[in-house]
Amino acid sequence: MGSSGKYTVGVDFGTLSARAVVADTGDGTVLASRTLPYAHAVLSERLPSGKILPPKFALECPADYREALFYTVREAVKASGVRKEDVIGIGVDVTSSTFLPVDKSGVPLTETPAFSDEPHAWIKLWKHHGAQEQADRLTEAANTGKEPFMDRAGGVINAEWMLPKLLETYEKAPEVFEAADNFIEAADWLVFLLTGEVTRCTCAAGYKLLWHETEGYPSPEFLEKVSPGFSRVYEKLKGRPVRVFEKAGGLTKEAAEALGLEPGTPVAGSLIDAHVSLVSAGIDAPGHALLILGTSCCIVLCSEKEAFVPGISGRVYESMLPGLYGYEAGQSAVGDIFDWFVRNCVPESCKREAEERGLDIHRLLTEKAEKLSPGESGLLALDWWNGNRSCLADSDLSGLILGLTLETKPEEIYRALLEACAYGARAIFEEFEKAGVRIDEVSACGGIVGKNPLMMRIYASVLGRPVMPVVSDQGSALGSAIYASAAAEGAGSHKTIGEAARAMGKTAPEPYLPDPAAREVYNGLYREYKALLTYFGQGGNDVMKRLRTFRADALEKKEN
Amino acid sequence: MGSSGKYTVGVDFGTLSARAVVADTGDGTVLASRTLPYAHAVLSERLPSGKILPPKFALECPADYREALFYTVREAVKASGVRKEDVIGIGVDVTSSTFLPVDKSGVPLTETPAFSDEPHAWIKLWKHHGAQEQADRLTEAANTGKEPFMDRAGGVINAEWMLPKLLETYEKAPEVFEAADNFIEAADWLVFLLTGEVTRCTCAAGYKLLWHETEGYPSPEFLEKVSPGFSRVYEKLKGRPVRVFEKAGGLTKEAAEALGLEPGTPVAGSLIDAHVSLVSAGIDAPGHALLILGTSCCIVLCSEKEAFVPGISGRVYESMLPGLYGYEAGQSAVGDIFDWFVRNCVPESCKREAEERGLDIHRLLTEKAEKLSPGESGLLALDWWNGNRSCLADSDLSGLILGLTLETKPEEIYRALLEACAYGARAIFEEFEKAGVRIDEVSACGGIVGKNPLMMRIYASVLGRPVMPVVSDQGSALGSAIYASAAAEGAGSHKTIGEAARAMGKTAPEPYLPDPAAREVYNGLYREYKALLTYFGQGGNDVMKRLRTFRADALEKKEN
Repeated sequence: MGSSGKYTVGVDFGTLSARAVVADTGDGTVLASRTLPYAHAVLSERLPSGKILPPKFALECPADYREALFYTVREAVKASGVRKEDVIGIGVDVTSSTFLPVDKSGVPLTETPAFSDEPHAWIKLWKHHGAQEQADRLTEAANTGKEPFMDRAGGVINAEWMLPKLLETYEKAPEVFEAADNFIEAADWLVFLLTGEVTRCTCAAGYKLLWHETEGYPSPEFLEKVSPGFSRVYEKLKGRPVRVFEKAGGLTKEAAEALGLEPGTPVAGSLIDAHVSLVSAGIDAPGHALLILGTSCCIVLCSEKEAFVPGISGRVYESMLPGLYGYEAGQSAVGDIFDWFVRNCVPESCKREAEERGLDIHRLLTEKAEKLSPGESGLLALDWWNGNRSCLADSDLSGLILGLTLETKPEEIYRALLEACAYGARAIFEEFEKAGVRIDEVSACGGIVGKNPLMMRIYASVLGRPVMPVVSDQGSALGSAIYASAAAEGAGSHKTIGEAARAMGKTAPEPYLPDPAAREVYNGLYREYKALLTYFGQGGNDVMKRLRTFRADALEKKEN
Repeated sequence: MGSSGKYTVGVDFGTLSARAVVADTGDGTVLASRTLPYAHAVLSERLPSGKILPPKFALECPADYREALFYTVREAVKASGVRKEDVIGIGVDVTSSTFLPVDKSGVPLTETPAFSDEPHAWIKLWKHHGAQEQADRLTEAANTGKEPFMDRAGGVINAEWMLPKLLETYEKAPEVFEAADNFIEAADWLVFLLTGEVTRCTCAAGYKLLWHETEGYPSPEFLEKVSPGFSRVYEKLKGRPVRVFEKAGGLTKEAAEALGLEPGTPVAGSLIDAHVSLVSAGIDAPGHALLILGTSCCIVLCSEKEAFVPGISGRVYESMLPGLYGYEAGQSAVGDIFDWFVRNCVPESCKREAEERGLDIHRLLTEKAEKLSPGESGLLALDWWNGNRSCLADSDLSGLILGLTLETKPEEIYRALLEACAYGARAIFEEFEKAGVRIDEVSACGGIVGKNPLMMRIYASVLGRPVMPVVSDQGSALGSAIYASAAAEGAGSHKTIGEAARAMGKTAPEPYLPDPAAREVYNGLYREYKALLTYFGQGGNDVMKRLRTFRADALEKKEN
């Protein structure tokens, strides 16, 4: 395609830092990027004041986000050398649900004297797990009442979503709840800082607040049943709904000045980090799944079909592409399992060999595992080291390795873990297909993709589909820049997000193809995996849950 | 008790060396000991001539045994400084079934020119596994024909026993079969070298040849059904039956001269290494089980009752104590599992800590595992790394670890493995009790016993019984000396083996007691273990066997 001579800025807010890129709307080339870690990082033990936090808390500081937004955009634009009139749009994505309470003027409550030292006034990060009890009660009540939104939630309300976290604030910090004018996703708040407009991303609202484009939010009656008075939360969820491929507003004079850009430059509706990866992988159509492989695995895809898929992280209309239902599902640990393995189970002899040969330990294990054929290890694992997200939605499940003998080698376990992750993805694919959501194509992105061709080959053979590797070091920021190009107008902009994805998204030159012989062996091994999944995950033997209880009891007795 | 002023010599032939001790018959004090490794060790790849052996072979050299017998006894007696007239008996134990073919004069066929290079003429060591196919056919035919001896065999004929190994010789080397005048246990052959008497230990004949004191051997019709002509083997099983606590004969003049002892010194009937441990642990009564903890675990005990216990390694009348049925059962890996773990799964950080603190790695892991409470690891394992010997008698089963999370630490796995071994022993105990063979007391011996108090405490709480640790570095040799003192006559001898065991056996000063709180948690965890045992070991899900097939297929495809 080549350069269009016009550029958009994408900003990605991760867990520990934000990153802005300046991308050419012609071919997605990134001219410059800037990253800033959050000064306070994640607050999980105490507030900056020293105030101790309850267990399972994960908070962040609104000022860190504000600083990161202005710093990274300004510096990336400056570094890119592009003229400010050639920057035609900005897009911002954040983890989700990551939100904060603000007052009538959009000022975070943490920046008002009364609430600066009140934990519930800070940003509740996506992985804040203080609302598990609230999530459980919401799930139980919704299932008992056969609430219609449970269908699109996949049957379980996750503690990481906004609704249970809001209930937690309502119950644990009523004064914060009262004082808040608006509970706003951090992404929407950042868009507000740029545009002065209070908007609400329909993507985040759909997945994390169970909002629906025609049915709206869960009924007030339902909320009242769970916690009397809680339905007032709807007075505190302000903002004009904006879809991800729409414009939220234009840069204010002040923001434009601070960033070195033109006032009125279009800003896209706010975005969710995992979901923007779809377009950055060049995906513009239904039936094409993207595996985002990192510490965990997030699977996103679109479909014309509105279907009930159990145990998914949600289904939202137009959350990624116009006219289509966006689906999210996932595995709660992938890269984390291999890190655990390397930290806890790799013997000194392997470490030494890796050092002597100047290899990363993962590289060495992969090299050894590559020499094994499918089935040769004699091992089978269940990939539930951090519970099962989809489709069992059960965080109390745990990992299993079976088939161990006195001859079992570390690289055999390593390979069995790779295979288990692939089986886990296949089990999710099968649930989608059972529900009528077809998956014709598969792409994979994430740091591990470029580093581990063996993993990609295993995935292709286990999934029975070509897997296209998307190798990019731009993370989600490019995705936000792509959305910005669709929200923009005039020269260099794209009429549709699909057109933008095709022009600017990364695509893989060569897919990994399933190997027919490996495929056949893996079909047999996958049947064994499914039998164990059913037995341990669906009520055949709840030993994993009982072991968690044994552990909790033992720890409690120890403390007393 | 104090010294009796009289002494017996016990000789223990292990897998790689023989060891003789001179023990005081008054209190079992060992005055001297001598060890000699076998010059040729185990022949598993080729004969000394260079001739290549088939897979799974494990042979030894008769001349090595002869040399070890005369050298160790002569030197131990010399080193002890005792007068030859004060040595009142000799006992010899060997692994079993470890046997050889001899000619009419008792000369090993390997020492005749025609057969010196014929593998089947050499000593077939207990762990020679060349007769698995023959063992399978014998088992199948015996079960089909409902042969009465299968009751005392525990339902499965093991490839390590003498009968399948004889069938192997009959079918694979008919000329050796024809030339042999007698197939003799190495222990009986060593007794012959000392006394000139051809005897047959009823203990080895009972366990390894399915001989019974009133029913005799399996019927010729049965052998003919399995392999026509094979019943002629009974012409080649010579020797007067001698029970373990009886005298086989007296030292010949030549042997006495070679050893520096008196001609006519009584020699006890030959012995099996694991079984002599019972008396060396001071056990003289029924209902007292001994756990011999080494690379694997052997469990021996006596009972007044003749019962059917499935999956045991055998039941033989008077195999250990007079008037009682001796039972043997076992777990096919215990110490081997921990060695595997340390070699394959212990991270560099642990190795480094152990080095810095000057600790053995097992010591470090035990120290860390000791800080955990029962149930705290959240883990559960099946101890089948080398299959299951008792009571499932299934070598195709394999190990399992369940409950793994991202927080799981190496010491938690280590402790879960210790617990799994204890659960395995408890499962065997329960089968005995179900069959009406009671177990009131438990002792444990083996190198691990003195080194790992945590393991002993776990066993006591899991088994729900005090466990008496028998710490001795004399191995089985002291047991043979004890049997010799019962076979002896006159001053310093013992009237019964029970009396000898009480006087000379080691006993523990302090048993490890079950901890009531731990016991309760372990009862719950053991229920979970049993549920997994039933599911994976008794037909609920044969995935472990199928994984072995997957592995075999993969390796076969690789070779082609």
